[in-house]
Amino acid sequence: MQIVTKEIQKSVGSGSMIRAMFTKGMELKKKFGEDKVFDFSIGNPDVPPPASAKPALEKIAANAIRPLGVGYCPNAGIPEVREKIAEFLSRQQEIGLKGKDVIMTVGAAGAIVAFFRAVIDKGDEVIVPSPYFVEYGAYCGHFGGVLKPVPSLEPDFRPDVDAIAAAITDRTRAIILNSPNNPTGCVYSERDLKAIAAVVDKVNETRERPLFILSDEPYRAFAYDGVKVPPMLPISKWTCVLGSFSKTLSLPGERIGYFVANPSMPEVDTLITAVTLTNRTLGFVNAPVFGQRLAAEICNETVDLSIYERRRAAMTDVLKGAGIEFVEPKGAFYIFAKSPVEDELKFVEALLAQNVLVVPGRAFGRSGYVRLCYALEEKIIRSSASGFRKAMESFA
Amino acid sequence: MQIVTKEIQKSVGSGSMIRAMFTKGMELKKKFGEDKVFDFSIGNPDVPPPASAKPALEKIAANAIRPLGVGYCPNAGIPEVREKIAEFLSRQQEIGLKGKDVIMTVGAAGAIVAFFRAVIDKGDEVIVPSPYFVEYGAYCGHFGGVLKPVPSLEPDFRPDVDAIAAAITDRTRAIILNSPNNPTGCVYSERDLKAIAAVVDKVNETRERPLFILSDEPYRAFAYDGVKVPPMLPISKWTCVLGSFSKTLSLPGERIGYFVANPSMPEVDTLITAVTLTNRTLGFVNAPVFGQRLAAEICNETVDLSIYERRRAAMTDVLKGAGIEFVEPKGAFYIFAKSPVEDELKFVEALLAQNVLVVPGRAFGRSGYVRLCYALEEKIIRSSASGFRKAMESFA
Repeated sequence: MQIVTKEIQKSVGSGSMIRAMFTKGMELKKKFGEDKVFDFSIGNPDVPPPASAKPALEKIAANAIRPLGVGYCPNAGIPEVREKIAEFLSRQQEIGLKGKDVIMTVGAAGAIVAFFRAVIDKGDEVIVPSPYFVEYGAYCGHFGGVLKPVPSLEPDFRPDVDAIAAAITDRTRAIILNSPNNPTGCVYSERDLKAIAAVVDKVNETRERPLFILSDEPYRAFAYDGVKVPPMLPISKWTCVLGSFSKTLSLPGERIGYFVANPSMPEVDTLITAVTLTNRTLGFVNAPVFGQRLAAEICNETVDLSIYERRRAAMTDVLKGAGIEFVEPKGAFYIFAKSPVEDELKFVEALLAQNVLVVPGRAFGRSGYVRLCYALEEKIIRSSASGFRKAMESFA
Repeated sequence: MQIVTKEIQKSVGSGSMIRAMFTKGMELKKKFGEDKVFDFSIGNPDVPPPASAKPALEKIAANAIRPLGVGYCPNAGIPEVREKIAEFLSRQQEIGLKGKDVIMTVGAAGAIVAFFRAVIDKGDEVIVPSPYFVEYGAYCGHFGGVLKPVPSLEPDFRPDVDAIAAAITDRTRAIILNSPNNPTGCVYSERDLKAIAAVVDKVNETRERPLFILSDEPYRAFAYDGVKVPPMLPISKWTCVLGSFSKTLSLPGERIGYFVANPSMPEVDTLITAVTLTNRTLGFVNAPVFGQRLAAEICNETVDLSIYERRRAAMTDVLKGAGIEFVEPKGAFYIFAKSPVEDELKFVEALLAQNVLVVPGRAFGRSGYVRLCYALEEKIIRSSASGFRKAMESFA
């Protein structure tokens, strides 16, 4: 019997390697105890939200009758929330934004899918520097879009601008940039970004259907060693930025994000109207109101980033101690480390034998590497040292 | 320039007639004052949520560190919330349900779109009794599905079972039932529902790809005069039910709903896994956690339905006084009233001249009628009497 479509059946069957590791981790924790398993597989922020989150939510509860009860929320978001987020993004992106430029969305993922629905025709292509967050393929695939990964440059995984330019065809509709990057932690330089923008500008000179830059920025706040993540909106008038408060406020469950387009993009009002429409007809309807109001209250704060900085130091100590090759990442909370053997599944297995969980690089479109998420307590990270060492020794 | 796709451009251009009336209403209110405009155009619950909503949300805020901070929420929902909602739905649907049968979704709309993504192939057909909620067309259209409206029986708009049976082809993948109905307020009888179920059972005897019944139930609690809305899940093993707490708890902005399939459906686990997957890859990821926890706390309550009952009485008084034909609806908060002229746009215009806003029936696929939403203060409803009378007189 064909209860679901063949395409979805296939996805269900293959599953996600990240999720598979998560399930494996649950089993191991049950068997050996929570503190005996070192789970670097899932990017799940465990740092508490800013202290202000609790009183802010209590205030929302106290005023509950209106926001709860008198219900109509415009599809693009509560007007005063859009204004607040526009102010926040104006500072962050170093460009003047108004409430009308911003759409509140069901997380960053909701923003991407609504955008793709508005601009993607069957057969359109979406370029992404590789390795990359695999869900992008599903996001554009819903509407017949095809993801075209373009390998980034080793060893530090900065985008290969020439290769990106060469990969553009008449059907390329968007280039996704994700900096700080999942899974590499790479922060793209202003120089590389401007080079990509120049390519896009040139392409759009003769284009009826413009090529967009889509900047996916859930990790913007997560930059270390004084590195600045360049504002992406001003680099090109063809840029759309989307992000979420899941990581910066440790609110991954409430699904609160935003979409914003460069206000000087030609016909930007049509794009904003279209994404507002697809946001409605895809069933998002509007971003959840408690999350909207909470984000408006505390968007200028972030979780304590020094915690992540210490964890990064612990993680790099552990990897160096085991002789694992990697480039120290400047952002996000991931390290994309080189496997000692070309088939990284063997390395993943060897680590698993030590109760250490990582995700194989091929889950991000790049074999020969593994992704480690260090959003874990420093103590646990440091305790994993012998596991990494033993796994490496098995390849000596 | 083609900034968005031609298909979306067309939708943006045509807009929604309901939204257009909403905008018109805003203009009129600005011009004449809030209390001089009678806006029956939008189904926006204005009754306060149950009194328990506020302390429940305060409790969630007080425990905020864990639900806010320790973030990972499984895509199908928080396990203990799924259990609670399964208990609630077991009583409501008169069938035994477990947490694993339920997926928490971003409202009812999110549930429908995730379901369609899981089962619809390009060219599949979806039957809906007409008049109907127009967004259904967009929901299945995202994935190449085609909506096939089947006219319901006048004057009371009960479904035409024979016509539904006759409309089924090899490509029919689902029949959407929406009872209590938007826009007619009709509550489908158990007899009609069982007749539809028998048709579906017969079709599925020889089907490789089953035909589903999709019961969209946001108005289930809104039934009057002691009428019972029959539980839909037990009527057929091929039934999926989805609903939301937007109306029953007056929480329209938080986007909290659910999807549940009859546990005795063949291969039901594959369906649940697939809808959980599409819920993730469509960018919903998971239902918002504050809404999930709030629903789990207060799902057994409802807003004060006697308010809606009094409003219905006021609305029917007004319509009778103006000599407008209609069948008194037993559910939801809408009346689908006959236009005195075949072209109901003329009636809409005449009402507009009296500052009375209604939606033309063609926005729901049935000309010659108008939809009135009586989710308005009783006083406002009663004050609209002379407007309705004068509009009717202009056609005398």
